[in-house]
Amino acid sequence: MAQKPSIPKGTRDFNPEQVAKRNYIFNTIRNAFLTFGFQPIETPSFENSDTLMGKYGDEGDRLIFKILNSGDYLSKADKIAYDEKDSTKLTSSISEKALRYDLTVPFARYVVQHQNEIEFPFKRYQIQPVWRADRPQKGRFREFYQCDADVVGSDSLWQEVEFIQLYDAVFSELNLEGVTIKVNNRKILSGIAEVIGASDKLIDFTVALDKLDKIGEEKVKEEMINKGISQEGITKLQLLFSLSGSFESQIESLKSILDSSEEGKKGINELSFINNAIKELGLLTTTLQLDVTLARGLNYYTGAIFEVAAPKTVNMGSIGGGGRYDDLTSIFGMNHVSGVGISFGLDRIYLVLEELGLFPETVNKNVKVLFINFGDKESLFSLKAIKQLRAQGINAELYPDSAKMKKQMNYANKRNIPFVVLVGDEELKSNNYTLKDMTSGEQFKVTQIELINRLK
Amino acid sequence: MAQKPSIPKGTRDFNPEQVAKRNYIFNTIRNAFLTFGFQPIETPSFENSDTLMGKYGDEGDRLIFKILNSGDYLSKADKIAYDEKDSTKLTSSISEKALRYDLTVPFARYVVQHQNEIEFPFKRYQIQPVWRADRPQKGRFREFYQCDADVVGSDSLWQEVEFIQLYDAVFSELNLEGVTIKVNNRKILSGIAEVIGASDKLIDFTVALDKLDKIGEEKVKEEMINKGISQEGITKLQLLFSLSGSFESQIESLKSILDSSEEGKKGINELSFINNAIKELGLLTTTLQLDVTLARGLNYYTGAIFEVAAPKTVNMGSIGGGGRYDDLTSIFGMNHVSGVGISFGLDRIYLVLEELGLFPETVNKNVKVLFINFGDKESLFSLKAIKQLRAQGINAELYPDSAKMKKQMNYANKRNIPFVVLVGDEELKSNNYTLKDMTSGEQFKVTQIELINRLK
Repeated sequence: MAQKPSIPKGTRDFNPEQVAKRNYIFNTIRNAFLTFGFQPIETPSFENSDTLMGKYGDEGDRLIFKILNSGDYLSKADKIAYDEKDSTKLTSSISEKALRYDLTVPFARYVVQHQNEIEFPFKRYQIQPVWRADRPQKGRFREFYQCDADVVGSDSLWQEVEFIQLYDAVFSELNLEGVTIKVNNRKILSGIAEVIGASDKLIDFTVALDKLDKIGEEKVKEEMINKGISQEGITKLQLLFSLSGSFESQIESLKSILDSSEEGKKGINELSFINNAIKELGLLTTTLQLDVTLARGLNYYTGAIFEVAAPKTVNMGSIGGGGRYDDLTSIFGMNHVSGVGISFGLDRIYLVLEELGLFPETVNKNVKVLFINFGDKESLFSLKAIKQLRAQGINAELYPDSAKMKKQMNYANKRNIPFVVLVGDEELKSNNYTLKDMTSGEQFKVTQIELINRLK
Repeated sequence: MAQKPSIPKGTRDFNPEQVAKRNYIFNTIRNAFLTFGFQPIETPSFENSDTLMGKYGDEGDRLIFKILNSGDYLSKADKIAYDEKDSTKLTSSISEKALRYDLTVPFARYVVQHQNEIEFPFKRYQIQPVWRADRPQKGRFREFYQCDADVVGSDSLWQEVEFIQLYDAVFSELNLEGVTIKVNNRKILSGIAEVIGASDKLIDFTVALDKLDKIGEEKVKEEMINKGISQEGITKLQLLFSLSGSFESQIESLKSILDSSEEGKKGINELSFINNAIKELGLLTTTLQLDVTLARGLNYYTGAIFEVAAPKTVNMGSIGGGGRYDDLTSIFGMNHVSGVGISFGLDRIYLVLEELGLFPETVNKNVKVLFINFGDKESLFSLKAIKQLRAQGINAELYPDSAKMKKQMNYANKRNIPFVVLVGDEELKSNNYTLKDMTSGEQFKVTQIELINRLK
């Protein structure tokens, strides 16, 4: 019966320290969501397959984990697919449910299903795991959490402003300085494509432009020409390639580039509105930056596009992203519901905080005091004080066995417990407790009340 | 593309109010776990199938959700099972992973896998969902949370004492009065079976005894005789059937019944130890009760057995349970690790609190103040105050659109927001805010500082 135990590849066990650190991030994000007026919802871990399939492209469909039907599932198997041994064709007849692939499609499903109970605009947040059958690699897992906040039911740009403030609030609260919030707008990209006569090649154009940082101006131009964008159009882009400097000066350049595009001008107005408001309101530690090469799932976003970059001292991709989408719920038959949302990348934020040593020292000091166990009479006496400590919210524990002193002290050290209490014959007689500070090594003889006051 | 959206049977969406109420219970339990020195771990939602299969009996194996392998899973399908269209036989060749069925087996797997990193005794808690392909019915779901705390690596009875205190702390904190913590001991049951010469029929005997409350003494006796327990043995049980009264008086009766059983006497000593300690330490709102008919997964428990009963005013089964098991980790090849643990039944506790109206009124008052939107200038002015409020931890939001006043006030009412702030021309000019108390209807003109102080 004995097996060498292991877990599936791409999944993780989290030990107490890791859970404490993850909860520190979750709690910070959750508190910010709440102070900004977002309300939590939760959806089931698995959805009906037809809710998820076809929503993420062919690649997404492949990466969705399917759950095998219960019982004699083969009795309903598609006969032709079974005879042909065609896995892809067979799946839908032996699997009706699938694990959630992200939080966005379940959210859209939730909004449509519960539309009559929801007060719009609906500001919801959701912090739950998702699952993807991706090839696991460094920083990419098959089970991971997403932390999303979205508003649906309003196209007000104040929401974009507030989301930037929300990012700023979270990263400031985490003491992570030097974060850049990059912003762009789909309408800017459409406008540019229009201006260079490549409206029909918007995707090719943005995919190429997105690489500017990595491969440089010449190679980007080459790729654009290969994709059929005219030399004339590319010449018009010259100003775009050298776009840099402040938000405002970039806006000025864009005004001249996009002079002839109504769509482009709309994008400029939206970006200006957001930038002006943020200038008035101020940011605590983050910087807002216009990045016209930012595209991120362009097919999906219709207005603002956000991406959050970790401090430059850390080699890490984006630690957050989001944007405005105008018709998410239409996949479930509910039209004209504008939405905008952002997401936090928990695992990457964790790695950044770890690398920069930004987790608070106290994050894993769960237990404040361990009572050494010298026997049953002493334990009972100890538990009377422990009961009072716990009632005051002080995390306290009794070592369960009257093991050797050294073993018990060792346990306190390894568990990172800052105080121990010793109760022996003498303490029992004098109705006192001996408190030892594990950092300084000092010992004090105290009454129960003094003990509580010292540990508070 | 449009579909009428729904979720799989036996699963649930949770709206903001439900999430808030569930989190209230989770947080109360989690805080108690922490004050008692338990540390959190988390394990993956799915495990390798061979970690789970065969651990819960045939019925359990059937109820475990299996995940279909990715890609061309049929290429590795068992040929014979495929040709025979035998679902049960085929499964292991097309599915390598399965959703967690409880938290106990993954915990055992975790302990064995990480034994070299763990400081024993290991006090862990775990609050995560589990999945069972059970037939859904009232109060029974296919996805539900378990909240478990266990200690492994010590056979000290102080842990049983502390678990009773822990139950008491949680239910007192939840203001749920009248909870009964029932306790029994496997050794008592073994002792009784020994005394009546039915040691080989321990299961049959306890299954029958467990029904005493429901079917009465005569029918229990009948069932025992049908199972082959002698009339002589049953006569010896007479005292047992009339066992009642205080913990102490029941212990006295057991002493005379179990006089000839060493195992039984051990059980009496353990129960007495626990009862005496609890009498010394006191309980806040719960009552400890000895219940010799309590068996709960007898095959599994080796010492103490716990079950928590909701207040008698509510018609609800057990809202928690647990006990001591001496060899849980042996299924993964690690022997002689004693463990003891308890579990809280979240969904039933939720129903009890709901029925008795015990959720705090503030549980869902997430947003404290809504700023009415009268236009962009006013919104910007509002956001300056909102920023300060949020920095003070006060949940505040701006209505995103300058919609009709009535619509915005309606939103505040429906969202249960206790205050609104009005900023119009006059407020802009005088640099003031008008604060309205939605309960009393009163309005105040206040400065930004006064606004913050009033809402704090």
